[in-house]
Amino acid sequence: MKLEPIPDIVVSRLPRYLQSLQRMHQAGQLTTSSQDLSSKIGISAAQIRKDFSQFGEFGKQGTGYSIPFLIEQLEAILKVNLVWEIALVGIGDLGHAIARYQGFTNQGFKISAVFDNDPARIGTKIGDFVVQDSAQMIPIIQRMGIKVAMLTVPASAAQGVAETLVNAGVTAILNYAPVVLNLPPGIRVEYIDPIIQLQHMTFYLQS
Amino acid sequence: MKLEPIPDIVVSRLPRYLQSLQRMHQAGQLTTSSQDLSSKIGISAAQIRKDFSQFGEFGKQGTGYSIPFLIEQLEAILKVNLVWEIALVGIGDLGHAIARYQGFTNQGFKISAVFDNDPARIGTKIGDFVVQDSAQMIPIIQRMGIKVAMLTVPASAAQGVAETLVNAGVTAILNYAPVVLNLPPGIRVEYIDPIIQLQHMTFYLQS
Repeated sequence: MKLEPIPDIVVSRLPRYLQSLQRMHQAGQLTTSSQDLSSKIGISAAQIRKDFSQFGEFGKQGTGYSIPFLIEQLEAILKVNLVWEIALVGIGDLGHAIARYQGFTNQGFKISAVFDNDPARIGTKIGDFVVQDSAQMIPIIQRMGIKVAMLTVPASAAQGVAETLVNAGVTAILNYAPVVLNLPPGIRVEYIDPIIQLQHMTFYLQS
Repeated sequence: MKLEPIPDIVVSRLPRYLQSLQRMHQAGQLTTSSQDLSSKIGISAAQIRKDFSQFGEFGKQGTGYSIPFLIEQLEAILKVNLVWEIALVGIGDLGHAIARYQGFTNQGFKISAVFDNDPARIGTKIGDFVVQDSAQMIPIIQRMGIKVAMLTVPASAAQGVAETLVNAGVTAILNYAPVVLNLPPGIRVEYIDPIIQLQHMTFYLQS
């Protein structure tokens, strides 16, 4: 493995490669090529070969890539050969849907604690979880050693809750609230906002 | 306005500028600067000035930008000074949450039809909507002239449903199913997948 830092734009493509390879593997496919992957995910074969070359030798020219080997390598690189516990904060409609979502299993993640500040919700059950009081986030998250959180609180509450999560030791936040978070350096934040992505598309539409 | 095509990477940042400007405006702020915007959204002031320069003169050096003027310009560029009707397909937990979400209002979007293929769901009400039979998607979407869809069906169904949407005249799809869609050229697709974004972050975490 080379020692230069991997550009973030390359890192951002690795989960897509992994997802596609897992799907091929589930369908019984054992080898693939950059052309095959390209046709499935819409990234050029040259780009895929270049991305993979960042991580050393993933396959041999001509014989293709072993899918199980690639999956194992990508899972290790992305550190999802571990299981990351997740704190989910905000149990409205969206938080509910996420708490009940089965898709995190086997992808390196497990929701381990759910929080809300609404007395009517605290103590209620959602799937396997009992909703805990968000006033207790710091001791609970610290005790569990949770590093990853998903934020599904209203926009007006997001910055404050995110700061509390950081104080509790969280270093990566997936933020569904439609607001940019201002957090200390070293804290990773990713955003999910359907409006932003819809508006990106309407630019190109004929009205 | 210049006639060169705007790079997609610039387009992708415009909704974030708009969101942040709307938030400032709601808080009563009337002018801003590239430095001010930069501090709020974490994009460099130089990049913001360069992006805005793609669209001609948005502000004068020294006096700052008028927030209402910028909002109006960005809404027109992104074509969200119109209201785009949306078809939402797949009324599981996530579809439910989206159908009930109030955040689309005033952002250029309105969910206008919701579909599912489950007889137990068809005809039921979610908020203001009656769930319609997805077998009727083509005539209903054609009649309504809907161009934008949100896809919250299981991964195994997503490709087929997306093809039906395209046949009905949809040209932009926001896909929540964890699978890459293979659609004709000219169809815009954006993806929302928490696993992809979580895995992007774990690359950087200390385990």
